[in-house]
Amino acid sequence: MKKFKGIAASDGIAIEKAFLLAEPDLSFTTYTVNNSDVEIERLNKAIQLSKDELFTIYQRTQKDLGRHAAEVFSAHIEILSDPEFFEQVTQLISKKQINAEAALDAITKKYIETFNALTDSYMKQRADDVNDVIKRVMSHLLGVTLNDPALVDRKVIIIAHELTPSVTAQFVPQLVKGIVSDLGGKTSHSAIMSRTLEIPSVVGLENIIENVQNGDVVIVDGLTGDVIVDPDNDQIEMYRAKQEEYQQQRKALAKLAAKDTMSNDGKKTLLAANISSDSEVEFAIQHGAEGIGLFRTEFLYMKTDKLPTEEEQFDIYKHVLDLMGDRPVTIRTADIGGDKPVPYLKAPKQDNPFLGYRAIRLSLDREDIFRTQLRALIRASAFGKLSIMFPMIATIEEFRQAKTVFNEELAKVQADKLPVGDIKLGIMVEVPATVILADQFASEVDFMSIGTNDLIQYTMAADRGNEKVAYLYQPYNPAVLRMIKMVIEACHNNSILACMCGEMAGDQLAIPILLGMGLDEYSMSSRQILPSRSLISTLDSDKMVALANRTLSFYSTSNDVIKDVKRTLYDDYENTYK
Amino acid sequence: MKKFKGIAASDGIAIEKAFLLAEPDLSFTTYTVNNSDVEIERLNKAIQLSKDELFTIYQRTQKDLGRHAAEVFSAHIEILSDPEFFEQVTQLISKKQINAEAALDAITKKYIETFNALTDSYMKQRADDVNDVIKRVMSHLLGVTLNDPALVDRKVIIIAHELTPSVTAQFVPQLVKGIVSDLGGKTSHSAIMSRTLEIPSVVGLENIIENVQNGDVVIVDGLTGDVIVDPDNDQIEMYRAKQEEYQQQRKALAKLAAKDTMSNDGKKTLLAANISSDSEVEFAIQHGAEGIGLFRTEFLYMKTDKLPTEEEQFDIYKHVLDLMGDRPVTIRTADIGGDKPVPYLKAPKQDNPFLGYRAIRLSLDREDIFRTQLRALIRASAFGKLSIMFPMIATIEEFRQAKTVFNEELAKVQADKLPVGDIKLGIMVEVPATVILADQFASEVDFMSIGTNDLIQYTMAADRGNEKVAYLYQPYNPAVLRMIKMVIEACHNNSILACMCGEMAGDQLAIPILLGMGLDEYSMSSRQILPSRSLISTLDSDKMVALANRTLSFYSTSNDVIKDVKRTLYDDYENTYK
Repeated sequence: MKKFKGIAASDGIAIEKAFLLAEPDLSFTTYTVNNSDVEIERLNKAIQLSKDELFTIYQRTQKDLGRHAAEVFSAHIEILSDPEFFEQVTQLISKKQINAEAALDAITKKYIETFNALTDSYMKQRADDVNDVIKRVMSHLLGVTLNDPALVDRKVIIIAHELTPSVTAQFVPQLVKGIVSDLGGKTSHSAIMSRTLEIPSVVGLENIIENVQNGDVVIVDGLTGDVIVDPDNDQIEMYRAKQEEYQQQRKALAKLAAKDTMSNDGKKTLLAANISSDSEVEFAIQHGAEGIGLFRTEFLYMKTDKLPTEEEQFDIYKHVLDLMGDRPVTIRTADIGGDKPVPYLKAPKQDNPFLGYRAIRLSLDREDIFRTQLRALIRASAFGKLSIMFPMIATIEEFRQAKTVFNEELAKVQADKLPVGDIKLGIMVEVPATVILADQFASEVDFMSIGTNDLIQYTMAADRGNEKVAYLYQPYNPAVLRMIKMVIEACHNNSILACMCGEMAGDQLAIPILLGMGLDEYSMSSRQILPSRSLISTLDSDKMVALANRTLSFYSTSNDVIKDVKRTLYDDYENTYK
Repeated sequence: MKKFKGIAASDGIAIEKAFLLAEPDLSFTTYTVNNSDVEIERLNKAIQLSKDELFTIYQRTQKDLGRHAAEVFSAHIEILSDPEFFEQVTQLISKKQINAEAALDAITKKYIETFNALTDSYMKQRADDVNDVIKRVMSHLLGVTLNDPALVDRKVIIIAHELTPSVTAQFVPQLVKGIVSDLGGKTSHSAIMSRTLEIPSVVGLENIIENVQNGDVVIVDGLTGDVIVDPDNDQIEMYRAKQEEYQQQRKALAKLAAKDTMSNDGKKTLLAANISSDSEVEFAIQHGAEGIGLFRTEFLYMKTDKLPTEEEQFDIYKHVLDLMGDRPVTIRTADIGGDKPVPYLKAPKQDNPFLGYRAIRLSLDREDIFRTQLRALIRASAFGKLSIMFPMIATIEEFRQAKTVFNEELAKVQADKLPVGDIKLGIMVEVPATVILADQFASEVDFMSIGTNDLIQYTMAADRGNEKVAYLYQPYNPAVLRMIKMVIEACHNNSILACMCGEMAGDQLAIPILLGMGLDEYSMSSRQILPSRSLISTLDSDKMVALANRTLSFYSTSNDVIKDVKRTLYDDYENTYK
């Protein structure tokens, strides 16, 4: 028996025999060629074969697993269609008269290095994509067959050094019961896909592949990150019981997908989803979203090398509104700049990007970009129930200015006789000043949505990405809770909705307090919706009001609050919550 | 008549004839030498001559102008004593067999480049020092005489391209009535020294030296930054009147130096000084400081390449307490790290230094450094009225932990039978969370001091050093004012002092509101104390309470507040304030 600890990447328990995915041998030698045109021709052929293959996988994945899962392959095809990248490879072949493999490898390494130099975790994941797609091209150059998961013909747990998205995508969910890999993080494409496929998965195990043989029995605990190789009978029995319990819970949760969100004593609230792309809407609906509380539009600006047009944006906003029907959809205008740089905007490097030129500050400064987005939103509003939300509002003047621009664009769209829906205009509350003046804001906006991730960072003056001060990122700090209460109270005094779209809205320890404070709308990642609905159904709002009041009045530290929440939940619901 | 606009560097008006300080010719040729030892010998001799000369100037300046003014020359002597720097020069001479001038110039350029690459304005000013001192060495190598202000034998206005501190220091205040230069900023050593000498000065004029002839009449307006060359009679008359008015005001202010700070209706407050070095204490007392509200100790850590010892610190703290007698002195523990990096601590580069590892976060993490500072402070406490203040406190746990360490060191000092005074322990309030929990903090600390510079940055989520968002640095934003009021109220409910040591405490538009809110202690740069005392003496506290209440309840923007303050001041005191 050997036990390993990795990163829990996808929930659930699996107990099956191991299937090792060996790495194909993509080694090559560098040599001089006489005719570089022949090499360039070989390269182009390998690219074309890779594209064809990816397109087949893309179509199959879209059919079997949905648009979201298939997105990675359209991204791969896009990488293969990047003229700049392959231009560099062909130039290197011509200039140095070397073989295609050597040139491809050199340019790829340069690209990966650039990606890895960036601190953004999103960009780092892009490096994985590039690696994955170049492996495919390399395999065609070398005539080597890539790992083919189609070899799997019985229920297995896949063990791999590194699981590329394209390999994961070929798994047959009926046969692949668990996934374990040496590399990868919680937000790697493979991790995301294993969650979509609902296959238990543990990643980042570092050297598991050397410790497992084909056919060994393996337990994967995707809840804790534990992996046990060659377990004894007691362990198998214990994990079978845990597996059974998990499946029962999931079944119970699934029944909640079509239900309202209601506390034990019948108080209704609304659980919505945070999404970053229109392709996530279906998944959100399946997981019981009663609305979209935050559609982040940054990715429209970051996925290509130019500004998205009004038409491109309109199509995507309309698509989301169409899919959501009469459920409310809140779309946030672009929070770009700062830590989410958009290279083609050429903004200067900032010493403190979190305190810098970003979000509404950039929108009001670059009205051309802002007006295009607003027009697309206004036009899309005819197709559903749209709210528009401005990020990083710090002063009332900013909101007024944004509203003026909005009204100008609205008038133009109406002058064009285009249909327009009833649009609500709100703000993200994530700057401390806006909390303190919430009473003044509440009389001018249609709703407020508390963005806890940034609000906590500014309130504690701590960048949670900085590991030396990450301990100061304290959602349960009484100061943070008091600020949330100030916002909710200001909203209710002005009869507008108080929403939250930060991570805290889906946090199982925070929800009882938020319910006690009277928060109206909770927006979270889709996966958190059903567990949250389940939790809320067990809570009595009166008791939560008392809990909230205690945290606001008596406590001075985060730990004081956590203790009370746990005590409150344990005492009342010892059997349903832990 | 020609009019120029520069940076107002030192208050006052001067009308005199111009005296041009021409730049000495320090050009040289590069040549190969046969015997590099001879060159090294020449270099060492030039360094020694420069040192001797600087020591003479140092002594004379200390005697005539005080320790603070002389400090620049001890810094210069230190630069000349840096073995690493000159080791590089001698190595270059040996290696390349070139003359001393060429080697000195090459290494200096490298150093200056490094300094200029840093964004810290303090470090940029250090580049000026290096330039200045190397010019002196170069002049001895070349046998050239440096600019000698001793040539001045009548009342003049000095016109220079660049004014090095060592030149400024040789000015005879009775003869040099004004200073004008092409280069330099508001915080350059020369600007600081001209303020100490109380010589009107305008810097950063870019090309003034080419537009003035020796003997031209020049008007220097150090209040506005205007410089007029060859003025007409009307202008001379107007500026004579302005000069007279300024001198009357200064005389009136000077009378306030020994007086209490009292509002028109007899409410007493305390005006203290912010200092960064013990050498600034005398200046503060001369300018009417009733205490030291903030002694920043960072410079102890930044001026050398190693940690200051307990003895070094003790001497400096004791010196400040000795000089201040029974007036209160608040010393802040080191706010190093973040945007004030201490190279020898080798902290990792941070993405958002303002939200990073700094101040109390570093102190609690590096207890060795913290305990040394606390011991030095505890021992010094026997010599005056000491308060210790912790910077960047964000949670109550941080204060408790700091207090525990303090108590442990206090017990050790007492066990050593060393005398100890009655020390108050307080916190800087500059993190929004600490404002929101001020009521909880107030029951555990002995005093609070609001650090508005950082508090405003976090509250508005805007780095004021970032010019794209500097407009969001809004001291008069009602959110900021409400937070200040929360702190003052929490302090008074717990019968402890509410202090402020940010720039806002000396801001003439903010003081009326702060007085209305009941702030107890205002700590500001020494130069602001007398004008602030004068302003307060004209204010009626009842009217200021009404003003403060209006800003807290009715207004939603910074502009709303500014308008009301101006209206209130104008209506009541039209003749004394503008």
